[in-house]
Amino acid sequence: MIRLYTYFRSGTSHRVRIALNLKGLTYEQVPVHLVKGEQQQEPYRTLNPQGLLPLLEDGAARVSQSLAIIDYLERTHPEPRLLLEDAAGEARVRSLALICACEMHPLNNLRVLKYLKNPLGLDQAARDAWCRHWMEEGFAALERRLTGELETGRFCHGDRPTVADICLVPQVVSSARWGTDLGPYPTVRRIHEACMELEAFARAMPANQPDAE
Amino acid sequence: MIRLYTYFRSGTSHRVRIALNLKGLTYEQVPVHLVKGEQQQEPYRTLNPQGLLPLLEDGAARVSQSLAIIDYLERTHPEPRLLLEDAAGEARVRSLALICACEMHPLNNLRVLKYLKNPLGLDQAARDAWCRHWMEEGFAALERRLTGELETGRFCHGDRPTVADICLVPQVVSSARWGTDLGPYPTVRRIHEACMELEAFARAMPANQPDAE
Repeated sequence: MIRLYTYFRSGTSHRVRIALNLKGLTYEQVPVHLVKGEQQQEPYRTLNPQGLLPLLEDGAARVSQSLAIIDYLERTHPEPRLLLEDAAGEARVRSLALICACEMHPLNNLRVLKYLKNPLGLDQAARDAWCRHWMEEGFAALERRLTGELETGRFCHGDRPTVADICLVPQVVSSARWGTDLGPYPTVRRIHEACMELEAFARAMPANQPDAE
Repeated sequence: MIRLYTYFRSGTSHRVRIALNLKGLTYEQVPVHLVKGEQQQEPYRTLNPQGLLPLLEDGAARVSQSLAIIDYLERTHPEPRLLLEDAAGEARVRSLALICACEMHPLNNLRVLKYLKNPLGLDQAARDAWCRHWMEEGFAALERRLTGELETGRFCHGDRPTVADICLVPQVVSSARWGTDLGPYPTVRRIHEACMELEAFARAMPANQPDAE
């Protein structure tokens, strides 16, 4: 039995939901309310001492950090593959995924936005500008690579979705909150649309979760 | 022939140097001056359209993003292993590494510090406080896990270094720049010291690089 501790609007939970759906795995969702701070309170805090979402339980195994969870699912349920079989292809999709995971998402999550508000005293407009700045830098980097590299296909790498698409889609979805203009990134938009035609991606959307508000 | 585009003080370059050393691989260093902005200029920008360090060239393969590089090295040079052979162990060391890679480093790198200064107008003291805040959150999370989980040994996982230690050490090293007090994190400090007794870690230190200033 797989159990996912999740919040509908959490971008990292969103990644894992897509991965589980692509693997065809059934799982139980346990909602943890991020805005109410439940991730920092018991009983969740004992399960995940870092107090962040998501967390996957699979029998005795308990895995935190979305990318570690996706690698764990790849090990325990290899098909269909979310990574590539060749070392160079795997490196490429990992590096694309990490643009989202290390250079975009960490700068616009709830904890960071809270710190910008207090103690830094930034108003809503300045906080939104901060988010848009890092979204634009990241999408520009993704667009340059996706247009310049021959391996790009219908999806980020060839004709089936990989971990790169799993990270791209939640980033596109969350970027809309800050009014990010995706006009300059046509390849990012095209791939996002291709993903959204797949049931695994559509079903993982925030609005389709049991805890959606 | 392996070539690493690197900067002595870049924490992500530091990770890859440790991994290359642990694998016993020889490599050529090509310094790219981060503070002068060479990573955003030609000729480097053509090699890595994202304009960030590090970048690994291995024959025809070109890999960006430090964690993708480490996974690539693990695939192409499996021994000694930097991940674990069992799925649960691999998930654990990946999740520890990602605390540094996704929750600590992205918030205190040069690009972010520049934005805090301009346009946000934060002075040096406020920028240092920002860095210390995220270092303290991250180290506290690492300390809770490392003290609470039975798999912790001489290193983050058992008695040989893994990708978790590869990410921990550069984070400890860079945290000193902002006056982070490591007193509350005795396990983090103990593991850092155990790592520094290994030649692979000592040789990878910023001060020991050809481009050190």
